[in-house]
Amino acid sequence: MLHTVDTLNTQDTSGPCLSIDEEVAKLLELKAQLGGDDGKHQFVLKTAKGTRDYNPKQMAIREKVFNTIIGCFKRHGAETIDTPVFELKETLTGKYGEDSKLIYDLKDQGGELLSLRYDLTVPFARYLAMNKITNIKRYHIAKVYRRDNPAMTRGRYREFYQCDFDIAGQYDAMIPDAECLKIVHEILSELDLGDFRIKVNDRRILDGMFAVCGVPDEKFRTICSTVDKLDKMAWEDVKKEMVNEKGLSEEAADQIGEYVSMQGGRDLAERLLQDPKMSQSKQACAGLSDIKLLFSYLELFQVTDKVVFDLSLARGLDYYTGIIYEAVLTQQGAPAEESVSVGSVAGGGRYDGLVGMFDPKGRKVPCVGVSIGIERIFSIMEQKAEASAEKVRTTEVQVMVASAQKNLLEERLKLVTELWNAGIKAEVMYKKNPKLLSQLQHCEESGIPLVAILGEQELKDGVVKLRVVATREEVRSIHSAHIMFVLSHTDTQICLDSNETLKVCM
Amino acid sequence: MLHTVDTLNTQDTSGPCLSIDEEVAKLLELKAQLGGDDGKHQFVLKTAKGTRDYNPKQMAIREKVFNTIIGCFKRHGAETIDTPVFELKETLTGKYGEDSKLIYDLKDQGGELLSLRYDLTVPFARYLAMNKITNIKRYHIAKVYRRDNPAMTRGRYREFYQCDFDIAGQYDAMIPDAECLKIVHEILSELDLGDFRIKVNDRRILDGMFAVCGVPDEKFRTICSTVDKLDKMAWEDVKKEMVNEKGLSEEAADQIGEYVSMQGGRDLAERLLQDPKMSQSKQACAGLSDIKLLFSYLELFQVTDKVVFDLSLARGLDYYTGIIYEAVLTQQGAPAEESVSVGSVAGGGRYDGLVGMFDPKGRKVPCVGVSIGIERIFSIMEQKAEASAEKVRTTEVQVMVASAQKNLLEERLKLVTELWNAGIKAEVMYKKNPKLLSQLQHCEESGIPLVAILGEQELKDGVVKLRVVATREEVRSIHSAHIMFVLSHTDTQICLDSNETLKVCM
Repeated sequence: MLHTVDTLNTQDTSGPCLSIDEEVAKLLELKAQLGGDDGKHQFVLKTAKGTRDYNPKQMAIREKVFNTIIGCFKRHGAETIDTPVFELKETLTGKYGEDSKLIYDLKDQGGELLSLRYDLTVPFARYLAMNKITNIKRYHIAKVYRRDNPAMTRGRYREFYQCDFDIAGQYDAMIPDAECLKIVHEILSELDLGDFRIKVNDRRILDGMFAVCGVPDEKFRTICSTVDKLDKMAWEDVKKEMVNEKGLSEEAADQIGEYVSMQGGRDLAERLLQDPKMSQSKQACAGLSDIKLLFSYLELFQVTDKVVFDLSLARGLDYYTGIIYEAVLTQQGAPAEESVSVGSVAGGGRYDGLVGMFDPKGRKVPCVGVSIGIERIFSIMEQKAEASAEKVRTTEVQVMVASAQKNLLEERLKLVTELWNAGIKAEVMYKKNPKLLSQLQHCEESGIPLVAILGEQELKDGVVKLRVVATREEVRSIHSAHIMFVLSHTDTQICLDSNETLKVCM
Repeated sequence: MLHTVDTLNTQDTSGPCLSIDEEVAKLLELKAQLGGDDGKHQFVLKTAKGTRDYNPKQMAIREKVFNTIIGCFKRHGAETIDTPVFELKETLTGKYGEDSKLIYDLKDQGGELLSLRYDLTVPFARYLAMNKITNIKRYHIAKVYRRDNPAMTRGRYREFYQCDFDIAGQYDAMIPDAECLKIVHEILSELDLGDFRIKVNDRRILDGMFAVCGVPDEKFRTICSTVDKLDKMAWEDVKKEMVNEKGLSEEAADQIGEYVSMQGGRDLAERLLQDPKMSQSKQACAGLSDIKLLFSYLELFQVTDKVVFDLSLARGLDYYTGIIYEAVLTQQGAPAEESVSVGSVAGGGRYDGLVGMFDPKGRKVPCVGVSIGIERIFSIMEQKAEASAEKVRTTEVQVMVASAQKNLLEERLKLVTELWNAGIKAEVMYKKNPKLLSQLQHCEESGIPLVAILGEQELKDGVVKLRVVATREEVRSIHSAHIMFVLSHTDTQICLDSNETLKVCM
């Protein structure tokens, strides 16, 4: 879905032109090539502009977020598919309007002309048409690519993940659409990112509104993309753009201004159905009836607390044909009327025409879907992890096999093999004679809860000393089979009771 | 690691030249552009050459394989990282020798020159140098890209997954190396792909062998890449290539031929250390001593049953500096001496110099790692799934909320909401009045074990009918809270006992 999560994308990009950053990078590269004192070629040691590595801590957070999202998608019965990272260039051609300039093309090295995928929706539509699939509920989590001006501190990258959930098929109105909103509600609640709102509108309501306000047909799209800026710009500026840049009459702009300030629920849809002007548009009425129906399902799904029918929501993309929506986080603590949008974290809508663009006979497959904007969510989760006292573990090791004396490598390797073979997550230091202190330090640093310590005496007695890292408590003698029993019945929580007996604490 | 899993890569590729397939594709494209009967532009509805979509069934198998592999990596205490799909072009330059021609470059659209990653090892080394990391145990599962001649039926693609596990750091000899082999042994055993063998050799033994056989220094690499073909070509042909194409003396070739036919274990390493010719090479002796040490650790890890010291193993890549290895599946049932390699499924080795190539001061970080060649494993698992009577489920839905009568959409949506909110995987049909038969059919098709059926009578009594799809048994009245209790205590295994009481069967 071209659920572009950041609607600023097309505003402040410098497009394919060289930015100052890139000029600097080029100069640094030239300087590096001229060489340092040793005359050797120096690498520019960096990742490509707008991209980043994920370190183990970030990956641990990412895994947690993905598990929540995938868990929700699976709870709703979705299958998953995967598509290649690049598509034939012509598959992407004509799908993204102005944004097409942000597509990464591959070099023509002979053979097909290829482009990196810009979103997961167009590949999904291509997949449906190619395999003649007329109904499917699928999720797809993968990276997409946009040659946009990166703003990495605000979570905007040139390589980023999209988490898409889409329902394709001919179904009764608004039922799958409502489920998409239910899913956004579940995911944002479960991730515990603070308060949020889901704005809903309909492409047909927007078009009907433009018509009854006197916008000429040919200006619908461009006026729509100006309306789309309302969450970043004041109405006065949006109006100026409409009148001065796009040549709309002031009267028409004012009428639009009245409508786009409206927010509400099912009641607003009902009121607008009675509105003498709006009700003149058949399109608008169809959209308003669907909004009413949608809200009735949202009530059954128990999610109306966060959903707002908002006539200012436009979403820039051409291919939406019905309902559209976008979820924003609202700053916590601020009073409701002052609550500021800290950015969109999910978006989507209905696109009933896209699959037909790929079908040789133009057969349509109605689709509705939502995309979770994961990068901004990562940023927030990362900040939360930084602020929290709890350390993020990057491994799941349950026990470290250590020795207190020298020359026990063989015994350590034997014991760790026993543990691995029993399915226990275990580590051993890759040294012949590591110091006990450095082995214990490694446990503390990486949060390993237990150490199995081998010594001459223990080996003679055929036992192992087991130590709880956090409390430094020790069980002096325990058979390795016992360790395995304990460890195979828990993940990490282990403590000793007052009788020095090992206990699993859940 | 450039653990190229298919050593044929450089032999039969047509490189950047247009292949016949591509010419055909171009002609078809031109034909499509000329249009069909309706004169409209027709898309070539396909994925890029050498790539494929994964459908839900394939994804279910892929997920299972990944879970096994990741489970093993985590059991061995590995963290994970991720790097961008493209790197600065110069990051990849000079790392892959002849294979560089297979790198996908991005089009110069202004800004940095970029290439798609060719493996996960070079990005890993770049990551270590860039972040000044001197020790880490990490895994990385991601797609890599090679403009190779695809042979998709044999599991060779232009976009394919690598599953890499690497240990970086200054440690005592052969301990991390042995763990890599232990990991290959665990994964291939757990995936149950049939019998396998892990061939081991050492770059220093190869070089030493070439030296004592009289190969001129400048011919080491090219002769090495000829030796690398021994698993696909007979010795006679390999010898011909050495003598006729590479200009080696017949005497030298014959001496090499004697060595590369040798296979064994620790004993072979000991024998070669006494070999009058081989023992003249210091390099070879260092390698042979390490092989001996390696085998002593492999015995402690209980994996020597599958590991063979094989002097014909060469592996094409330049950057290996010590131990190298490759795992091959051997056809089942055939007697050992006839067992034919059905292809390499894992490979790797030690590369102590690569990180230093990225460090401005050339500081080295010793590394050893292994890459699991997942595509061929997928192919085998897919074939197994096809052959098996058991159906592959593509969703995890536990219960379908259905109705037997009309006008019960609201009630269905209410119940499914209760279930979702309780964390239960549930589905409902997106129709106002679906037929009971089509609801039940959907369950049978997608393997949903239970149906909760709503009817007028049940609603009056405040209960739900619960039906086991497989046996068609029903509990006539059950409270929705009971459904939730049952479902939250099991995944799918549910049956009825003789008293019509619902039972969880584990």
